Amino acid sequence: MGKGLRPALCMATCQAFGGTEEQSLKSAVALEMIHNAFLVHDDVEDNSECRHRMPTLQAEQGVPIAVNIGDAMNALSLRLVRENIPMLGHQLTQRIYEEFEHLMLKSLEGQASELGWVRDNRCDITEADYLQMILNKTCWYSFMHPCRIGGLIASKDTLDLDRFNKFGYFMGAAFQIQDDVLNLVGDSHQYGKEIGGDIWEGKRTLMLVHLFKQGTPSERDVLQAFMAKPRGERSEEEVSWVIQRMQDYGSIDYAIAVAHQFAEAALEEFSVAYQDTPNSGEKAFIPKLIHYMISRNL
Amino acid sequence: MGKGLRPALCMATCQAFGGTEEQSLKSAVALEMIHNAFLVHDDVEDNSECRHRMPTLQAEQGVPIAVNIGDAMNALSLRLVRENIPMLGHQLTQRIYEEFEHLMLKSLEGQASELGWVRDNRCDITEADYLQMILNKTCWYSFMHPCRIGGLIASKDTLDLDRFNKFGYFMGAAFQIQDDVLNLVGDSHQYGKEIGGDIWEGKRTLMLVHLFKQGTPSERDVLQAFMAKPRGERSEEEVSWVIQRMQDYGSIDYAIAVAHQFAEAALEEFSVAYQDTPNSGEKAFIPKLIHYMISRNL
Repeated sequence: MGKGLRPALCMATCQAFGGTEEQSLKSAVALEMIHNAFLVHDDVEDNSECRHRMPTLQAEQGVPIAVNIGDAMNALSLRLVRENIPMLGHQLTQRIYEEFEHLMLKSLEGQASELGWVRDNRCDITEADYLQMILNKTCWYSFMHPCRIGGLIASKDTLDLDRFNKFGYFMGAAFQIQDDVLNLVGDSHQYGKEIGGDIWEGKRTLMLVHLFKQGTPSERDVLQAFMAKPRGERSEEEVSWVIQRMQDYGSIDYAIAVAHQFAEAALEEFSVAYQDTPNSGEKAFIPKLIHYMISRNL
Repeated sequence: MGKGLRPALCMATCQAFGGTEEQSLKSAVALEMIHNAFLVHDDVEDNSECRHRMPTLQAEQGVPIAVNIGDAMNALSLRLVRENIPMLGHQLTQRIYEEFEHLMLKSLEGQASELGWVRDNRCDITEADYLQMILNKTCWYSFMHPCRIGGLIASKDTLDLDRFNKFGYFMGAAFQIQDDVLNLVGDSHQYGKEIGGDIWEGKRTLMLVHLFKQGTPSERDVLQAFMAKPRGERSEEEVSWVIQRMQDYGSIDYAIAVAHQFAEAALEEFSVAYQDTPNSGEKAFIPKLIHYMISRNL
């Protein structure tokens, strides 16, 4: 069901920098597993009904069991990291573990911002706030750290891993903004989640930030009152009104354009981050991932 | 608010085996923090309103924020484990980390059993099932591993840590059964949680197992129908009926007697697990903990 973006990016980077598939395999699997652990708790936190065209774990088994299973998946992903010791040794494994620790804490911090904005009904979120939030919530764990971990393993900790940060951030921003757009205009069958779900959940997306900035004062008041309601009190009609206003003000087109700009910037940063590496199929695969991300419809 | 049992047991054991306070400090703090991370998610899973005489995090901030904060506390507790490296070195820290990994997975496994029994309305739980569940849910992380980690650090990984298992299991069983009894008959102000909360939540306790075994067939049917209801549909009257039946059949007295037997067995195992260690204030503190646990009313 998943796309396997994170393990693919980690393994391709490891090989682009001269490492082997085998060396990064455990870390790549751990990245995919911790991603899925995040999804299980995210679906609890967002009260989401549907993911990958299937009922979410919390919809099917209830919140208690979903929280417990997410915790177990999290612990098991860290066990996979530890299983690197026989092949990579204590010190390198410890460095990989540090990368995982940072990606966990950053994702949780980004999630805390997003949940706090919903709780406080913050209607003054700027583009800079939004980008900081997705840097934490998405870019670190999904793009920056997969590259960093691949480079770390291949170089046996001799590479300055910050070389991947801009590249991963640009790629992650393109991905997350595109994901938010698909949540509004995607085909629900292909996308696999409820269309408009972010609006039902009160998520602060780039489109919402844009609409708050572009709308008239009275539209802003209506929007703020809508956002103040708990999910259960929002109506289909209100959600349609929000999407219509976003279309009228070009908020969705604006977000698509920003996603494309981030993707272009990522392509440029790719040539910086992966400079000095020989041409290889694995290296060539990475820019293809960027194209895929902004042209995908699921 | 907390009693600090787990860090106290870890540090006292480390010192009883010749280690220093400083050597076990980070691990002891990590034990207390991971315990609190468990409590935050437990309160979500049990939909508990009250803990330590205060509203739970989920009651005050809602499920999404409580899930996220529990995740962060969990990650931060593992960071504390990693902070042992400068003082204890890579290999010993790795061994401590393995102990934490095992305690996490065992607790989650115990919690999974308990949640599954509620989900499936299992009314055929035996005493052996119950003891296996609390071994996983409580004994490993609260008693067995705190001792093991203290001994591990003090001995620099030269001790067979299984020497603490029986002692920690007996102590943990005494603690958990006493905790379940206090949930029924305690003073809510001192105990800090809702009295009868376990019955409202459908928890399978030793008293409930006893009542299912001792009650008449028609009482068992009433009890099973009550247990099948979601929490919101249970009434004060029904909960009182369950407590009354437990009193009539001596289920509570039985559980108190079992807790005392486990405490006595723990005292005997103490002298085995801590044999060959010189007398010290720290060593003498440990049996006092056992007495405290079964005489406590909070």
